[in-house]
Amino acid sequence: MVSLSNGQWSTLYNVFSFGLISMLACTVYTLVSQHRVLPKYRNALVLSSMVTFIAAYHYFRIFNSFNESSAADGVTIGTAKGAFNEAYRYVDWILTVPLLLVEVIAVLSLAKAAASSLIGRLVPASAAMIALGYPGEISTVNSTKVLFGVLSTIPFLYILYVLFVELGKSLERQPEGVAATVGRLRLLLIATWGVYPISYLLPIVNKVTADTAASSFTNRQIGYTIADVLAKCVFGLTIFKIARLKSAAEGMKDDH
Amino acid sequence: MVSLSNGQWSTLYNVFSFGLISMLACTVYTLVSQHRVLPKYRNALVLSSMVTFIAAYHYFRIFNSFNESSAADGVTIGTAKGAFNEAYRYVDWILTVPLLLVEVIAVLSLAKAAASSLIGRLVPASAAMIALGYPGEISTVNSTKVLFGVLSTIPFLYILYVLFVELGKSLERQPEGVAATVGRLRLLLIATWGVYPISYLLPIVNKVTADTAASSFTNRQIGYTIADVLAKCVFGLTIFKIARLKSAAEGMKDDH
Repeated sequence: MVSLSNGQWSTLYNVFSFGLISMLACTVYTLVSQHRVLPKYRNALVLSSMVTFIAAYHYFRIFNSFNESSAADGVTIGTAKGAFNEAYRYVDWILTVPLLLVEVIAVLSLAKAAASSLIGRLVPASAAMIALGYPGEISTVNSTKVLFGVLSTIPFLYILYVLFVELGKSLERQPEGVAATVGRLRLLLIATWGVYPISYLLPIVNKVTADTAASSFTNRQIGYTIADVLAKCVFGLTIFKIARLKSAAEGMKDDH
Repeated sequence: MVSLSNGQWSTLYNVFSFGLISMLACTVYTLVSQHRVLPKYRNALVLSSMVTFIAAYHYFRIFNSFNESSAADGVTIGTAKGAFNEAYRYVDWILTVPLLLVEVIAVLSLAKAAASSLIGRLVPASAAMIALGYPGEISTVNSTKVLFGVLSTIPFLYILYVLFVELGKSLERQPEGVAATVGRLRLLLIATWGVYPISYLLPIVNKVTADTAASSFTNRQIGYTIADVLAKCVFGLTIFKIARLKSAAEGMKDDH
């Protein structure tokens, strides 16, 4: 049980609602804007739409779970029925993080063999990263948290290597402006994905006491939500921008 | 009544939620991606979308039923009002399993007479397979379980015969890459459908006691859910891939 102040409770309630509608609006926007890019880039937009759709579902569940697990004396946390179900985030990530990486490959429209090879490495690595994080997240033993934190970092570093070194080679052949935008996309990815391990590490380095439990819980939920909106909505809109740049470079009329 | 630990309860709650959103996202994806294949293959995608749509509905019901049949001391099972309604799975399968088989025939776009003949045998056989399994599933008498298990296996073997022997003949005339993908599709089908009889047999060969009831229930639900996601979502995406390969072989531009 975490005792939140009224201000903390109300902030989280509104932050979750903000996450839900941001994801939902982004889902519809990328779906109905497909005709503004060439057909070959539309799958990247559909994938982005699926990512935010899956996230919208989970924010709907998180919002309800937060409401239902709250009583006058605080929010029940843990894994019992009726507790705030933090695991929705992990179910979300194990579906959306691999999809986000496929989205990047799809918008670059690389040669088929290169795309298959990148997807074949990024998807299992990202699934392993999330799956290895979960046992650490639910553990209350610090040594277990550190162990799974380290294990989960290995596929994360591998993903960074693939995105920066391997993918970097293919960027040289992209039209002007695209390489710079993809560069910003990768920075956005690192900046937002960086929130998750920081949030994971905080309770380990900064021991949570009864005094700090409420602010620790509140800050973590706000951090995760902002990171999710950046990593999915802003990320998806950047993918859309790349698709527009590439479509224009390949002769699509600018007035679409 | 099955007494689940908090960890087991929470795992099932999240597994059901994972099944629900996987089915739903797949439904939307196959529906909005129709323009990426030739018109003749679009019905296969729509059928796939209907399969995952029906499954999404049932996972929504299963998720709610699990939540509502749970109390502090465990989950009520059985057929009384308020108990966890396992039968949703059978209602789902009797609709989706025949549809899945029609999906395979649709994507191959065989000659009309061959397609009608295959559908005319696969649909009744698959409906019989599910309908004969159900009396065994709800029975608590082992001899009844074995009887209906054997009866249900007869149409299952017949389906395998049709898919591997009869359908095999028509694969020789398919374009390059398609025969191999259809081969993988059949293996996926056997691997995932294999989960259901194993799950059905387990309580017969391994007598469930009060000690093992919770883990037996948990493992069965996880096994069914993973098998469903593989047999419907991954199956549907493989059907999509076959449709893309065939569309490309028949002259559809690759940039779609």
